Amino acid sequence: MDTKRQSSFQEEALELLLKDADKIARLIKVQMDHLTMPSCPLYEEVLDTQMFGLSREIDFAVKLGLIERERGKEILDTLEKELSLLHEAYTNK
Amino acid sequence: MDTKRQSSFQEEALELLLKDADKIARLIKVQMDHLTMPSCPLYEEVLDTQMFGLSREIDFAVKLGLIERERGKEILDTLEKELSLLHEAYTNK
Repeated sequence: MDTKRQSSFQEEALELLLKDADKIARLIKVQMDHLTMPSCPLYEEVLDTQMFGLSREIDFAVKLGLIERERGKEILDTLEKELSLLHEAYTNK
Repeated sequence: MDTKRQSSFQEEALELLLKDADKIARLIKVQMDHLTMPSCPLYEEVLDTQMFGLSREIDFAVKLGLIERERGKEILDTLEKELSLLHEAYTNK
């Protein structure tokens, strides 16, 4: 039953990683939408933890040759940009 | 160039996960070997972070069908047992 091939694994891996990245993006958006509420350091820690988890998944996928290193970096960079916008908004509020 | 197959991905995935698990086991051993030194909470945090990272890699591999859920659980359980021995040794020292 050795039917699943590289392209199939690659598609699924990218899909899973983008899904996890989307979850983090939503968390960031929720934080952004609640900027008027008191700052919550725990939530920031949650975001950092999720980013770390995603970076480990991406490293693993890159090592297995399931996604390009550049593609993985793009996914993390996009989130990092949104995170830094969030931090900026907090600082300036 | 669609030549890499399921079995090859599965073997590589397990190898990578066991390698990461071994890194954590070594960290635990180093801690055990230095039990006479003052307890270091940061080091414990490092271990927890590494465990979380590994569990995310394992989840990812399970979702892709690269390893059995049971096998992944075994890898984490083995480390959890070593971790709890370490905590016990700390408590009783």
